[in-house]
Amino acid sequence: MTLRELFDDGGVTIGGWCAIPSAFSAELMGRFGFDWVCVDMQHGLIGYEQAAAMLQALSITDTPAWVRVPWNQPDYIMKALDAGAQGIIVPMVETAAQARSAVESVKYPPAGVRSWGPIRASLGVEGYSPEVANKRTVVAAMIETVDGMKNMDEIMSVSGLDAIYVGPSDLGLTHGMVPTLSPEPGSAHEGLILEVLAGCQRNGVVPGVHTDSVETALRRRDAGFKMITVMSDALLLRAAASSALAAVRGQTPAPAATTSTSGSSYA
Amino acid sequence: MTLRELFDDGGVTIGGWCAIPSAFSAELMGRFGFDWVCVDMQHGLIGYEQAAAMLQALSITDTPAWVRVPWNQPDYIMKALDAGAQGIIVPMVETAAQARSAVESVKYPPAGVRSWGPIRASLGVEGYSPEVANKRTVVAAMIETVDGMKNMDEIMSVSGLDAIYVGPSDLGLTHGMVPTLSPEPGSAHEGLILEVLAGCQRNGVVPGVHTDSVETALRRRDAGFKMITVMSDALLLRAAASSALAAVRGQTPAPAATTSTSGSSYA
Amino acid sequence: MTLRELFDDGGVTIGGWCAIPSAFSAELMGRFGFDWVCVDMQHGLIGYEQAAAMLQALSITDTPAWVRVPWNQPDYIMKALDAGAQGIIVPMVETAAQARSAVESVKYPPAGVRSWGPIRASLGVEGYSPEVANKRTVVAAMIETVDGMKNMDEIMSVSGLDAIYVGPSDLGLTHGMVPTLSPEPGSAHEGLILEVLAGCQRNGVVPGVHTDSVETALRRRDAGFKMITVMSDALLLRAAASSALAAVRGQTPAPAATTSTSGSSYA
Amino acid sequence: MTLRELFDDGGVTIGGWCAIPSAFSAELMGRFGFDWVCVDMQHGLIGYEQAAAMLQALSITDTPAWVRVPWNQPDYIMKALDAGAQGIIVPMVETAAQARSAVESVKYPPAGVRSWGPIRASLGVEGYSPEVANKRTVVAAMIETVDGMKNMDEIMSVSGLDAIYVGPSDLGLTHGMVPTLSPEPGSAHEGLILEVLAGCQRNGVVPGVHTDSVETALRRRDAGFKMITVMSDALLLRAAASSALAAVRGQTPAPAATTSTSGSSYA
Amino acid sequence: MTLRELFDDGGVTIGGWCAIPSAFSAELMGRFGFDWVCVDMQHGLIGYEQAAAMLQALSITDTPAWVRVPWNQPDYIMKALDAGAQGIIVPMVETAAQARSAVESVKYPPAGVRSWGPIRASLGVEGYSPEVANKRTVVAAMIETVDGMKNMDEIMSVSGLDAIYVGPSDLGLTHGMVPTLSPEPGSAHEGLILEVLAGCQRNGVVPGVHTDSVETALRRRDAGFKMITVMSDALLLRAAASSALAAVRGQTPAPAATTSTSGSSYA
Amino acid sequence: MTLRELFDDGGVTIGGWCAIPSAFSAELMGRFGFDWVCVDMQHGLIGYEQAAAMLQALSITDTPAWVRVPWNQPDYIMKALDAGAQGIIVPMVETAAQARSAVESVKYPPAGVRSWGPIRASLGVEGYSPEVANKRTVVAAMIETVDGMKNMDEIMSVSGLDAIYVGPSDLGLTHGMVPTLSPEPGSAHEGLILEVLAGCQRNGVVPGVHTDSVETALRRRDAGFKMITVMSDALLLRAAASSALAAVRGQTPAPAATTSTSGSSYA
Repeated sequence: MTLRELFDDGGVTIGGWCAIPSAFSAELMGRFGFDWVCVDMQHGLIGYEQAAAMLQALSITDTPAWVRVPWNQPDYIMKALDAGAQGIIVPMVETAAQARSAVESVKYPPAGVRSWGPIRASLGVEGYSPEVANKRTVVAAMIETVDGMKNMDEIMSVSGLDAIYVGPSDLGLTHGMVPTLSPEPGSAHEGLILEVLAGCQRNGVVPGVHTDSVETALRRRDAGFKMITVMSDALLLRAAASSALAAVRGQTPAPAATTSTSGSSYA
Repeated sequence: MTLRELFDDGGVTIGGWCAIPSAFSAELMGRFGFDWVCVDMQHGLIGYEQAAAMLQALSITDTPAWVRVPWNQPDYIMKALDAGAQGIIVPMVETAAQARSAVESVKYPPAGVRSWGPIRASLGVEGYSPEVANKRTVVAAMIETVDGMKNMDEIMSVSGLDAIYVGPSDLGLTHGMVPTLSPEPGSAHEGLILEVLAGCQRNGVVPGVHTDSVETALRRRDAGFKMITVMSDALLLRAAASSALAAVRGQTPAPAATTSTSGSSYA
Repeated sequence: MTLRELFDDGGVTIGGWCAIPSAFSAELMGRFGFDWVCVDMQHGLIGYEQAAAMLQALSITDTPAWVRVPWNQPDYIMKALDAGAQGIIVPMVETAAQARSAVESVKYPPAGVRSWGPIRASLGVEGYSPEVANKRTVVAAMIETVDGMKNMDEIMSVSGLDAIYVGPSDLGLTHGMVPTLSPEPGSAHEGLILEVLAGCQRNGVVPGVHTDSVETALRRRDAGFKMITVMSDALLLRAAASSALAAVRGQTPAPAATTSTSGSSYA
Repeated sequence: MTLRELFDDGGVTIGGWCAIPSAFSAELMGRFGFDWVCVDMQHGLIGYEQAAAMLQALSITDTPAWVRVPWNQPDYIMKALDAGAQGIIVPMVETAAQARSAVESVKYPPAGVRSWGPIRASLGVEGYSPEVANKRTVVAAMIETVDGMKNMDEIMSVSGLDAIYVGPSDLGLTHGMVPTLSPEPGSAHEGLILEVLAGCQRNGVVPGVHTDSVETALRRRDAGFKMITVMSDALLLRAAASSALAAVRGQTPAPAATTSTSGSSYA
Repeated sequence: MTLRELFDDGGVTIGGWCAIPSAFSAELMGRFGFDWVCVDMQHGLIGYEQAAAMLQALSITDTPAWVRVPWNQPDYIMKALDAGAQGIIVPMVETAAQARSAVESVKYPPAGVRSWGPIRASLGVEGYSPEVANKRTVVAAMIETVDGMKNMDEIMSVSGLDAIYVGPSDLGLTHGMVPTLSPEPGSAHEGLILEVLAGCQRNGVVPGVHTDSVETALRRRDAGFKMITVMSDALLLRAAASSALAAVRGQTPAPAATTSTSGSSYA
Repeated sequence: MTLRELFDDGGVTIGGWCAIPSAFSAELMGRFGFDWVCVDMQHGLIGYEQAAAMLQALSITDTPAWVRVPWNQPDYIMKALDAGAQGIIVPMVETAAQARSAVESVKYPPAGVRSWGPIRASLGVEGYSPEVANKRTVVAAMIETVDGMKNMDEIMSVSGLDAIYVGPSDLGLTHGMVPTLSPEPGSAHEGLILEVLAGCQRNGVVPGVHTDSVETALRRRDAGFKMITVMSDALLLRAAASSALAAVRGQTPAPAATTSTSGSSYA
C-alpha cells in the first residue's frame, strides 16, 4: 500500500522510525509489519547518502517510506522525494506560509514548484507523471512550537497538506515544560497535544504523533490520532537490550525514562 | 583543457552527466572523451561525500568538472568548488538577484564573497590565488521556469555569469506542458527553448542545454547551442542495456520514452 | 523468478553484469529486464560492503542475483549467500576437488558445509530452511584454464554443480592466446569455448559464457549456450557514451576493442 | 574492564552481538550495559571497513569488543586485532591444529605469529608491547560440527585458547538436526551443547554459547556457561518491534521462531 | 574537560583542526594532546556522514569537539550538536542578528530554538536536560569580513556568544589583501586581527584565531588570543612529509607558503 | 614515472606510506613529492573499498602506487592490481614457494596465473596487454621472520621477484627482540637488517626497508638500501602535531618512541 492509499483508507496506521544510519536495519524495519517507516534526517544520525540507501532498502519491502527532512528547505524535500520517499515530514512549521512552502516543494507544477528529476521516484511506478506523483506524495507539517500552536488553523488549512505530526518533546519544551514524549495524562503538556488533535479533526487533516512507548501509543490511538509512531529503532533496541540484560541478570530493567544513556527519546 | 579555456575557445562542447553516485563510473565518464562532465547533486542520487570522491576521480582524467548544486545556496557552491569543481550549474534561477548571488558565491572578493579554503581546488594549479581562481571558475544559471523566462535578459546581463543551461523538462512543466527533454520540433515547448537560445545570443552568454538523445543533441547543436549534454550515465546505461537485451532476444527495444523504468530522463 | 526456477525452466537466460560499485546502478541493472544480474567481486571494483548494498538493491527488483566471488574460498561464498545472492560463480576452477569445495560451501549440511546464519538470505523466503535453501541456491564453476579444460568432465560431474561459466579471456590467455571475449569464429580460441560447451552438454550441466557484444552473445546462443552475459555495466556505458559522442560530433565511434580506455572487456 | 580481566574474574558475562553494520548501533550496544559486545563478521552484514568503524564506536564506551572473524585465517584475525578487538571468536574449528593456528594468529612471537602493527590496538594502552598484548588478547574457538565434537578435548587443550563458543544452530545442523539456538531441554541437540560444556569444565576453558532468548540464556547460565550472548541487535530489534506493534494493534506478537522474516536467529 | 570547562578555566587552549575526512585521523588528532579538536565542515573535505563518524572517534578520547558548520543555518548547527559536538564555529558572521541566530540554534528553549533530539549528544552525559545542554554547549562566531569588522561590538554583545574565531585569510581577502594566515607583523592585515582581539577583550568574549605555523601561533598567544589552532591535519601532514623528504634527500624543504600544492593553508 | 621505470633507473627512491583510510590524505601523500606511495592493507586501517578509492586518488598525481596486501593470497594481489596498483608488497614471505606464488599472482600467463580483468589497471595505459602489464608490475616480498632469513637466497632467486622489503619490527620480534623500526646501530637487530641487505646485493634484487624517522632513513640509504619509506602518514601527523603542540606550549615534545599513543610505529 502507498502512503496515499493508507491515507485514503482512513484507518489508524502504526509507523516505524529509523534513527540508525543503516540500510540493513532499515530493511528490517520495513519487514516488521509497520504500516510505514520514517527515515529521520532531522534528529536521526542520518545524512543524505545513508538516507538514499535506506530508501532503497525500504523499497525491497512493501512498506512505504516517509523522510523527516532536517529543515523546511526545498532541496531537502525534493532530493528525498527523488530518492524514493513517498511522504515528507517537515519539522518546526510555525506559519501557513511555511506550510505552503513545504507543500509546494513536494508538488510538481502547477500545484507546486518541485523540479522534475524523479531519478528513483519514478522507478516501478506505472505511468509516472507530474499528476500521478502529485497524487501519490503526501506531506505532513510538524506543530511543535508556541507559534505553531497559535497558527494551527491557518497551517491546517493549507491546500495539499495531508497531515500534522505532533512532536511532543519540542511542543513541551517550547512551552516551558520538560521535553518528554509521554507527559502525564491530564497534564498541561498532554493538553497541548490534544489541542492539536482537535485542530486536526476540526480542519480535516490527519492527526499524527510521535511516542516512545506502547502505553502512550495506545493512549494516542484511543484519543483519535491516526498516524502513530511507537518507538524509534534506537529506542526499540535499547528497550529490548535492557530488558533482556536485566532478565538474564535477575535484575529489574532500568526505567525507559533514563534518557541519558540513549538520547533516543526525542521528537 | 579547463572549462574556462573551453569557453574562451568558443566551440561547441559535448558533456557527460553523472547521476550514478560512484567514483568509478565518474572516472569512466571522464575517460570517454566528453569535453566536460557534470556531477549532478540536484537530481542525481549524489550527496556531498560521493560528489567529492567523484571530483577526485574526474581529476585523474583531463576532463574538467561541473557540479550542479542542489540549490542556489552559498555553501553548496563553495563546498563544490573547494572540492575541485571548475564550474557550477545553479538550478531554478528566476531573477537577476539570484543569478548575482550565484556568481558571488563562485567568486572570491572583490568580485564575490567566496570564502578562502581551496582544500582541493588549489591542488595542482600553478600559482593558485583569488585572481587565478576567479578567472578559472565558470558559472551557469538554469532558466527553466516562467519567471526565469520573464527575467531572462536581466539574468543574462549579470556580470560574471558565463552561461545559461536550459532545463527543458522543468521549462515545459512550469509552462503547463509535459516534462520532456525532447519536445516536438515546432512545438510551443521547443519554442521556449529557442527563446532562451536567442536570449543568450542577444546577451553574449554561452547557451547550454540538457538532452536525452543524439537526435535532440544534434538539433540543439544545429540551432546554435554551444554546451550540450547528450544523456546522463543512467540513461546511457539504460539505452545500451535495453538495446543489447532486445537484440539478443530478437526483440525491438522499448522506446526511450518509457521513463517509468528509469526515471533518468530529467532536467 | 528465482535462479533455480530459471534453471529448471531450461531456456536461454540473458544476464547483466555489475562491475561498477554502486547500489543505484545495480538497481537500474535489476530493472532493465535481464533474467539475472551478477555482482562481480572478482574483477569488478566491488568489495563486500558495496556487494551487500548491491544485493539489497537487486532485491527491490524481481531479478535474481549471482555473485562472482573473488576466489574459491568458503567465507567469500557463505558471506555472499548470507547477504542475499541466489547463485555463486566461482572463478578459476581447475579440479573436481575445487568444484566440490565450491558446492559444499554453497550448501548447508548434509549436502555441504555452509554455516547457518542467513541474515538476509532468509528474508522474505517462505519457510526458509536448510532444505529450501539448498534447493534454491545455484552454483557455477568457471572453466578458464588449461587444467580446467583437462579436468572438465570430472568437474562437470560434481554433484550439485549447476553450471559452467566460461571465461573466454582467461581461457585464451592460459592457452597462449590473446585475452578476448570475442575470438574469431573458427579460431582455436573459439574452439576451446565450444569444447566446454560440448562438455556441458555431455555432462548435463548448464553452459554459460561471458561476452562483450551483441554479436558474440547471439553466436553463443545459437551455438547452444544457455546462460549468457551480454556486456558489463561499464562496457555498456562505454559503448553508449562513445557512440553518442561520435554521433553528435559526426565521427565514427572508436571500435569496442580499444580496451585501453576502459579495461571493462574482461572475464 | 578488559576481556582478560573479565575472564580472570571468572564470573558469568552477558554479551551483546552486532549483526547490523553501523557504528551508531554499535555505540548504543556498547552503552546498554553488556559485559562485552561482539562484532560479527561471519554472519553479520559487516565487512572490514564497517567493523573498524564499529570497533572505534565501541572504544567510546568501556565495553570490550570481540570480533567473530569470517574464517580461521591469519589476516582476518590480525586485522581485527589491529583495529582494536580484544578478543577473537573463530568459527568452525574442527581440529587442534586449527585451534593452534587461531591462537598463533592472535599472539605475537614467541607465543604466536601475529605481525607487529597495532595501528589502533596500542592506542590508549599503557606500555603496549608484545607481552602486554599477548596477555590482553583472548581467543575463543567455536565448536559446532561433528569433527569439532570428536576432537573437543584436543582442541580445548591447545595452549593459549581461552574459551569455547558453542554455535548451537550449526552444531545441530551438522548432526542432522534442525538449526535452532533454543533446542528442547532434554533433546539430543541440547545434549550436544551440554557435552561441550562438560568438555570445557573438564579442560579448564571458559564455556560460551550463543542464544536467542532470555529463557535459553537463563538455562545456559544455570547449566554453567560463563560467556553468554542473549540476542543479536537484529533479533532484539525484531523482538521489540513485533511486540510493540502487536500490543498497539491489540494482537498477539508472532512467535520469535518465525525466522523467515528476519534471518537473525543464527549461530 | 568539556569545552565549557576549558572556557570557564580561562587559560590559553591549543586546538587541532580536521580537514581530512577520516574517523581514524580524527581519533589520532584526539589523542595527540590538543585541548580540543575542530571538525571543519566548511572548507574541510567533510560531509555530514564523515563528520558524525569523526565525532564518534573524538568521543573515544577525552578531547572535546567543535564543528565548524558550512554555513549559519539552524539544521547544520543542530545536526552537528545532536551528533556530539560540544561547540559550534559559525563562519562569516556579519551582524548581531546573524550571531543571535547562531546562538539560538545552539540553545534549547527558552534561550534558543534548538529542537529536542540529542541522539548522540545525551549519551554519557549525566542528567542530560535542556539546562545541562545549554550550559555545556559553546558557540563561536567568525569575524572575517568588512561588515563583520564594522559590526564587531554588536556581534560580541550578543548574549550567549562565547567566542570570536578570527579567520585571517578571509579577513585579509575581504579587505583587499592577500589571503594568508600569517601576515607580516606590523602590517595592516595583522592590524585587523589585533583589532578583533581588542574587541573581544573589550566585550568579554574569548578571542580565537586560526594559524598555519608555530611561529604565528606563538605570536597570537603572546598577543592575548586564548583559543588558537596551530595547523590543520592536512597542513601538519604536508609540513612533516616535506621536511622528512627534504632531509632524506639532503635538500632544503619547500617553504610552507607554497600553498599551490596543498590548499590546506586556509581559514 | 612508473614503478618499473624507477626500478630500471636504479636510484634510491623514497616512499610515502598510507595507513589512514582516506582518499583525500592519499591524494595529498601523492602530491608531496614522494617517489611512490604505498597503501597499506595489512596494518593500515584500510579495507578493499578504501584502498580502491585511494588508488584512484593516487592516479590523480604522477606518483605510482604500491599496495601492501594483508596476506599472500592470489585474490588480494589480483584485486589490488586490477584496482590500479603498480606494485605489490607481500608480507611474511618465508619460502621460495611463497615468493613464487606471490610473483605468479602478479603476472599474467605465461609468467604467472593472474586472471584477466584489468578494470582500472588498463585505464590510461597505452596498448595494455598481458605483456605490457607483466613488464609494468613489480613485486616485493617481505623478509621479516626467522624462516624468511634462513631461506633468503632461495626467495631472492625467484624469477620475477623485483625487491625485498624488510620489516624491521617483525624481523626483530621473531628473533626475540623488541619490535622497533630503529634498532641501535651495531645491535644484533641492526645486524639482521644488514644481512638482508647483503643478500639483496648478492642476489641482484632491490633492497627496501621501512623506517620511522629521518635519521634511520638516512642510515639505511647510506648502507645501500634503494627503496626506503620514511614514516607513515599517521606517524608524520603525530610527529608534526606533537612537535607543534610542544612548541606552542613551550614544552619539549614527547619522544617519538612513545608508541602507546599512536600505534603507528610498525612494520
